[in-house]
Amino acid sequence: MKALVYHGPGQKDWERTEDPTIVAPSDAIVRIDSSTICGTDLHILKGDVPEVQPGTVLGHEAVGTIVEVGSAVTTLAEGDRVLVSCITSCGRCRFCKEGHYGLCTGGGGWIFGHLIDGLQAEYARIPFAETSVYKVPENLTDEQVLFLADILPTAYEVGVLNGKVDAGDTVVVVGAGPIGLATVMTAKLYTPAQVVAIDLADARLGRAREFGADITINNGTEDAIAAVFDLTQGLGADVAVEAVGMPETFELCTELVRPGGRVANVGVHGHSATLHLETLWIKDVTITTGLVDTFTTPRLLQLIAGGRLDPTPFATHRFALGETLAAYDTFAAAAETNALKVVLEGEYALRAPRELFETAGVS
Amino acid sequence: MKALVYHGPGQKDWERTEDPTIVAPSDAIVRIDSSTICGTDLHILKGDVPEVQPGTVLGHEAVGTIVEVGSAVTTLAEGDRVLVSCITSCGRCRFCKEGHYGLCTGGGGWIFGHLIDGLQAEYARIPFAETSVYKVPENLTDEQVLFLADILPTAYEVGVLNGKVDAGDTVVVVGAGPIGLATVMTAKLYTPAQVVAIDLADARLGRAREFGADITINNGTEDAIAAVFDLTQGLGADVAVEAVGMPETFELCTELVRPGGRVANVGVHGHSATLHLETLWIKDVTITTGLVDTFTTPRLLQLIAGGRLDPTPFATHRFALGETLAAYDTFAAAAETNALKVVLEGEYALRAPRELFETAGVS
Amino acid sequence: MKALVYHGPGQKDWERTEDPTIVAPSDAIVRIDSSTICGTDLHILKGDVPEVQPGTVLGHEAVGTIVEVGSAVTTLAEGDRVLVSCITSCGRCRFCKEGHYGLCTGGGGWIFGHLIDGLQAEYARIPFAETSVYKVPENLTDEQVLFLADILPTAYEVGVLNGKVDAGDTVVVVGAGPIGLATVMTAKLYTPAQVVAIDLADARLGRAREFGADITINNGTEDAIAAVFDLTQGLGADVAVEAVGMPETFELCTELVRPGGRVANVGVHGHSATLHLETLWIKDVTITTGLVDTFTTPRLLQLIAGGRLDPTPFATHRFALGETLAAYDTFAAAAETNALKVVLEGEYALRAPRELFETAGVS
Amino acid sequence: MKALVYHGPGQKDWERTEDPTIVAPSDAIVRIDSSTICGTDLHILKGDVPEVQPGTVLGHEAVGTIVEVGSAVTTLAEGDRVLVSCITSCGRCRFCKEGHYGLCTGGGGWIFGHLIDGLQAEYARIPFAETSVYKVPENLTDEQVLFLADILPTAYEVGVLNGKVDAGDTVVVVGAGPIGLATVMTAKLYTPAQVVAIDLADARLGRAREFGADITINNGTEDAIAAVFDLTQGLGADVAVEAVGMPETFELCTELVRPGGRVANVGVHGHSATLHLETLWIKDVTITTGLVDTFTTPRLLQLIAGGRLDPTPFATHRFALGETLAAYDTFAAAAETNALKVVLEGEYALRAPRELFETAGVS
Repeated sequence: MKALVYHGPGQKDWERTEDPTIVAPSDAIVRIDSSTICGTDLHILKGDVPEVQPGTVLGHEAVGTIVEVGSAVTTLAEGDRVLVSCITSCGRCRFCKEGHYGLCTGGGGWIFGHLIDGLQAEYARIPFAETSVYKVPENLTDEQVLFLADILPTAYEVGVLNGKVDAGDTVVVVGAGPIGLATVMTAKLYTPAQVVAIDLADARLGRAREFGADITINNGTEDAIAAVFDLTQGLGADVAVEAVGMPETFELCTELVRPGGRVANVGVHGHSATLHLETLWIKDVTITTGLVDTFTTPRLLQLIAGGRLDPTPFATHRFALGETLAAYDTFAAAAETNALKVVLEGEYALRAPRELFETAGVS
Repeated sequence: MKALVYHGPGQKDWERTEDPTIVAPSDAIVRIDSSTICGTDLHILKGDVPEVQPGTVLGHEAVGTIVEVGSAVTTLAEGDRVLVSCITSCGRCRFCKEGHYGLCTGGGGWIFGHLIDGLQAEYARIPFAETSVYKVPENLTDEQVLFLADILPTAYEVGVLNGKVDAGDTVVVVGAGPIGLATVMTAKLYTPAQVVAIDLADARLGRAREFGADITINNGTEDAIAAVFDLTQGLGADVAVEAVGMPETFELCTELVRPGGRVANVGVHGHSATLHLETLWIKDVTITTGLVDTFTTPRLLQLIAGGRLDPTPFATHRFALGETLAAYDTFAAAAETNALKVVLEGEYALRAPRELFETAGVS
Repeated sequence: MKALVYHGPGQKDWERTEDPTIVAPSDAIVRIDSSTICGTDLHILKGDVPEVQPGTVLGHEAVGTIVEVGSAVTTLAEGDRVLVSCITSCGRCRFCKEGHYGLCTGGGGWIFGHLIDGLQAEYARIPFAETSVYKVPENLTDEQVLFLADILPTAYEVGVLNGKVDAGDTVVVVGAGPIGLATVMTAKLYTPAQVVAIDLADARLGRAREFGADITINNGTEDAIAAVFDLTQGLGADVAVEAVGMPETFELCTELVRPGGRVANVGVHGHSATLHLETLWIKDVTITTGLVDTFTTPRLLQLIAGGRLDPTPFATHRFALGETLAAYDTFAAAAETNALKVVLEGEYALRAPRELFETAGVS
Repeated sequence: MKALVYHGPGQKDWERTEDPTIVAPSDAIVRIDSSTICGTDLHILKGDVPEVQPGTVLGHEAVGTIVEVGSAVTTLAEGDRVLVSCITSCGRCRFCKEGHYGLCTGGGGWIFGHLIDGLQAEYARIPFAETSVYKVPENLTDEQVLFLADILPTAYEVGVLNGKVDAGDTVVVVGAGPIGLATVMTAKLYTPAQVVAIDLADARLGRAREFGADITINNGTEDAIAAVFDLTQGLGADVAVEAVGMPETFELCTELVRPGGRVANVGVHGHSATLHLETLWIKDVTITTGLVDTFTTPRLLQLIAGGRLDPTPFATHRFALGETLAAYDTFAAAAETNALKVVLEGEYALRAPRELFETAGVS
C-alpha cells in the first residue's frame, strides 16, 4: 500500500510501504476511505514529538471500511464502515473502565501516527478494534463524521464539558483556530447566553462568527479583559477555554474568569505558565486540563444523525489520498490558504452529492 | 384597590378590597403591572385546595413595580420593576439556604393566592421581598418575563434539570398543555437529539410542534410505547417527563424510559400511581418529583435578555386587569379557545410595540 | 468436575458434570477456590427465575485461580488469583463503556448460574474474562474479598451511592438481612450522622447493631415512621434504602424520607408497589432502582487492602465445596441458623490462620 | 467593653472601646463567650492585609450569646447561643443564593476583624445575623463548635469537597499546620484508603498522625514525590491538598497528583506559582482554589452532635478573654509552644467538665 511516512524532522513522503496485517486477535484492518491532517502532525514534522520513530506512518483521524478482523473480534465484520478515532482504548485498564481512554495504560491512548503506524494511508491496523472504532450510521457521509476523530470530541470534552458550560453562561474561547472553532460550535449545544471569541487574527475571528460566536475580540488591538468585564457587568466569564497552547493565552483565561468560574485548558503547551495564586487563591476557580477521551463520540454521532450538529464547514479543502503531500502544504500554510481541515479522500470515500457542497460554499 | 377574590368553591369576584400594607420590615408593596392565571387557580376554584381560605386574593404570577419597602429592605427601592415569582423564599431556613425555596420552612414557599393574598390584584404585599423578587432588565417587556413566574422554571427545573436532559438525548414529554410545552421549550436548551411529545389532543400536539417537538404521538390513536421504542432502536427514552398529573401518564413514562434513564414528574397528582417494581427494580431508573424552587430564574432571565429563549408565544390572549373574570372564562375553556396563558394587563404594563405582536400572530 | 446442578424447581444435586472448556478467545477457565450462596439461588430453586434452564450449574460469586486463558487474553495468566463477580462485562457495548456492566447488551450482565453455568463448581468458564474478573491482592484471604462478588457492591452502588449518602446524613435501611447489613456497613464509609435499621426480627436488628447501625427499630412492634421523625426533628430521613423487596417496605421508605431526600431501592421485587404521588409530587424526592454494575469493585478492594473495610463478619458458616448441599440447607434455614453468608471452600481456598477466625467469633 | 484593637502593623492592645450597637434592622449584638486567634490575624499584624484600618477590633471566630436583635430579626432572640462564623452572608446576592457566601457581593463575606470590628471582644455587632450565625445545639460545649467558625469548614469545603475526596482514595495533604490537620480530620469522613501528610517539621508530622494521617513524609529529608509514587504503585495521589500557601508546596501538589486527579488549594498565597502546563496539559488534572463559604456548617454541627467529629483536640491552650495579648504570644510562637488553636474564654464560656479536658490531655 501507499502511506505518508515520517522520516525524521522535516522529512516525509507518500510512498509504498508494507500492507498492515492482523497481529493480535483483537485487531482489525481498515481500508482508509477519508483521512485528514492535524496540527499535531505538523508538530511531529518539526521534531517536537521525539517519541515518533522515523518510518512511522502519520495520521490519527479517519473514516474507513473494515476489510479483516482478528479471531477475537465478534462485533465488527468485513464491510463495516467505521470512524477510527485518535484515541484507542484497550477496554480493560482502570482508566478505560472509567471512560478515560486518553489515559489508557493497557497499550491504547494516542498511538496512531505516534507509537504505531497511523491513518494517512490506504490501510491501517487497528488494535483493540472493538473498543476503539465506532460504526458510522448509513446515511452519513465521511465528512459529516470525520472530524469526530479528534477535533470535535477534544473541544467538546476538554473544553465544553470540563468547563461545565451551561445554559445562560458567558463563555470565552481564547483562540479561533480549528480547535477554538470546534469549542464555539459545541459550546452552543448548551445555549450559553453569549459566546465570545478572542484571537489576534481578524480572519479567524470572522470564522468564529460564522461558527456561532456572538462577540469577537482582537486582543492585538483591543483590551480583551476590559471587554469581557464590560460584557459581564464587571463580573468576568463563567467559563474561559484556552485553545491556543501558550502561557499568555492561559494566563489571559485566568484573568477573564469570574469568581467561581471555570478555566478549561484545551491547548497543547510546550512551556509552563505563571499561575497568579496571589489573586486566584480566593477566587474559587476551577482549572482543568486534559487529553480527549472520545467517550462522547456516540453522543456526537447522535447529534449529527439528528441534524443537530454539522461539522462539515471544517472541511475547507479536499485532496485525493494520493495527494497527501499537497494537502500538507495547504494545511501548513493555513494563514494564507485559510485552511481549517483538509480532507484526504480515498477511492471509496462516501461523499455528499456535489451540489450539496457547492451550496455550502466549500471548494 | 380591586382584586380577584376567592369566596369558596366555584365563587370568585373582581371586587374592591383593602390595599395591602407593609407588615414586616422585609416586606415590599408592588403595583401589579401584568399578571396571569394558572391551572392551579382553577383547581382552587373547584375546591381542590382546601387550605385556601375564602376571602383570599388569588394569583401567584406577576410583573410589577415596587411602590413601598419595609424598613429592612435595602436592595430594592420604589420604582424598581420586578418579577414576582410563585415561590417566596425566607432566605434563612435550611432549605432556602440550599436553594430549595419551594420547600421553605420559614414562611415562604408557595404562599401567594394560597396562604396569603395573591397577585391578580392592583397591588400586593410581598413578604421576604429581597429574596423573593427579581429585577427585570430594562429592555424586556412584561410578557417576555411574566411566564418566569411559574411555568418556565417549573418545566425547566422539575422537568429538564431533574431529568438531566443532555445533548443527544431522546426526551419524551407526556402532556402538551402549557407545562408540557414549556418543557419542550426548555429541553431544547440542551440540544437533545429528538424531543417527542405525547398527548391525546391533536391540537395540542400541533402546538408542541410549534414549540419545538420533533415528533408527536397521539396516544389515543397510536401505540406510544411502540412508537418511542421504534424511535430509539428498541431502547426507550433517555428522559421521560410527566406533565399531566394522572396515574396513567406517570405509568406510561416508566414504561417508555430506557434502562438507566430518568423519569421526571412535573404533573400535580391527586391520586396514587402503580409503580411496577417487578420490572423496574433491575432497570436502573431514576424517578424524581418536585415543586419548582425558581432558583433558575436569574439564568432564565439571562437567556431571555440574550435572545436565547422567547416565552412570548405562551401569551395567546390578553385582557385588561379589570377584565380578569372574562380572562378566567377564556382560560378555563382552553379546549375551545386554545388558550395557553392569558395575560392580565394593568394600566402600566410594559408592552412590546403593537406591530411586534401582530407579526407574532398573537391576538 | 463436580458442581451444584439445578434440575428444575426444588431440585438440585452436587454431581459430576463436564469440565468447562475455552469457547471464545476472550474466555478463561477458573478453578473455584471459594464460593458462596446467594438469596437469588434460593429464588431460582423455587422456580421464580424461569429463564434458568435445568442442567445449569448455579452460583455467581467466587474467588478462584486461572488455569487456562483464551487466545485473546493478554492481561491474565494461569495462576492469577481472581475475584469472579456476579456481573460479566463484554466491555464493548454502550452500557459497558459507560460503566453500567449490569445492563450489558453484549452478552454479559448477570449470566453465571442464570444463563450459563455458574460458580458453585470446581471449575468455571468465564466469558469476557479480562473485563469481568479482578486480580486479588496477594495478602488478602478469600473471605476478605469473596463478598465483593455481589453483596458488597450491590449494597454500596445501588443503596449507598444511588442514595447519595453523605457525611452528616440520617440514613434509614429497611431490612437487616445480608444486603441490608452490607448497606449499613458501606453507608458508614461516608460518616452519616446516624444509621437507622428497621426490621421485623430482633435477631436481625441485633446483627445490624453489630454491623454499625446506631439505632434499630422493630416495625412489628414500633411505629417506625414516628420513630424516624423523632430522630430527625420531624423532618424525615435524608436517605432511605429499601433492602427487602416487598411493596410494604418500599412504601415505608417513601414515607420515611424527608422532603428533598432519596429513596434507593436495592430489594428484588416480584410485585408492584403503590406510589403515593398525591403526596410525593411536591416532596422533591428522588427514587432510584438498579442492579449492581460492580464498577466499584476496585475501590472496595482498595478499602479492604487498606484495612478500611472488613467484610469477613458476613462469613457465618463454612463448608467444604463438596458439602454444598448441606450449605444450602444451612443458608435456607437462616431464621434458625442465623446464617448470613455460607462459605464454600475448595481444596485451595486461601484462608486466614485459624486463630484469627476464632478471635472474630466465627464458627 | 474591652476588645483586641489593631493599631497598625505590629501594634495591638486589649483595651476599652465603644460597645457595639444595632445599626441595621438585620443586625444582632452578641456577647462573645469564646473566641480564638487565626493565622490570618498574625498576617494582619504584620501589615500583610492593608485594607484593615487601624482601630479595628480583630478576630473572626466566636461562640456567643445574643443580647439584642434588630427590628427585622425574627428567627433569633436574646439568649440564643450561636456560632459566629468567619463568613457573613447577606443572603440576597447572586453568590449567597448559590451558597457561595465567601463571594458575597452584598456586604458580607469575610468582614469581621477585616472590614468591620471583629470577635476578639466582649461584644460584637453581627450584620445579616439571620443568615450568618448558627444556633448551637444545647448539649455541645463552646470548644466543640468554636473551630467551625473557620478552620474546619475551610479544610472541609476548600480541601476535601473541592478535592472530591472519596472512599478508597489516596489523599496527600501538604502542610501539617492547623489547616492541614483539619484537612486530615475531615478527609477521613469519606474513608480514603490512605491519608499522607507532608511537612518539614517532625513535630507537626507527629500531630498529623494523631489527627489521623496514615503515613507522614518529611520533605526536608525525604523525597516526597518518590514516596507518594511508591505508595500508589507509581500512579500518584488521587487528591493533593495544598495547605501551606507557598509556590513550592503548590507545585509539589501538581507533581504528586495522578493523571485524572485533583489538586485543591487551601493555602493563602502571596506569590504566584509556576504551572507546568508542558506536562500537565495532557494529565487531566483539576485544580481548585477557594475561600470558605461555610455552607457546610450545619452538616458539621450534625456530625459533632452525632459524635462523628471531635474538633476539641485543636484546643491546645486556653486563656481568659482578658488575657488575649498573652494568647497572641503563645499562638505566634507555635513552633515552640506547639499551639494549634488558643481558646479565649469569656466569663460565660460553656466548658466541658474539667476532668474531661484532663482525660483528653489538654492543658
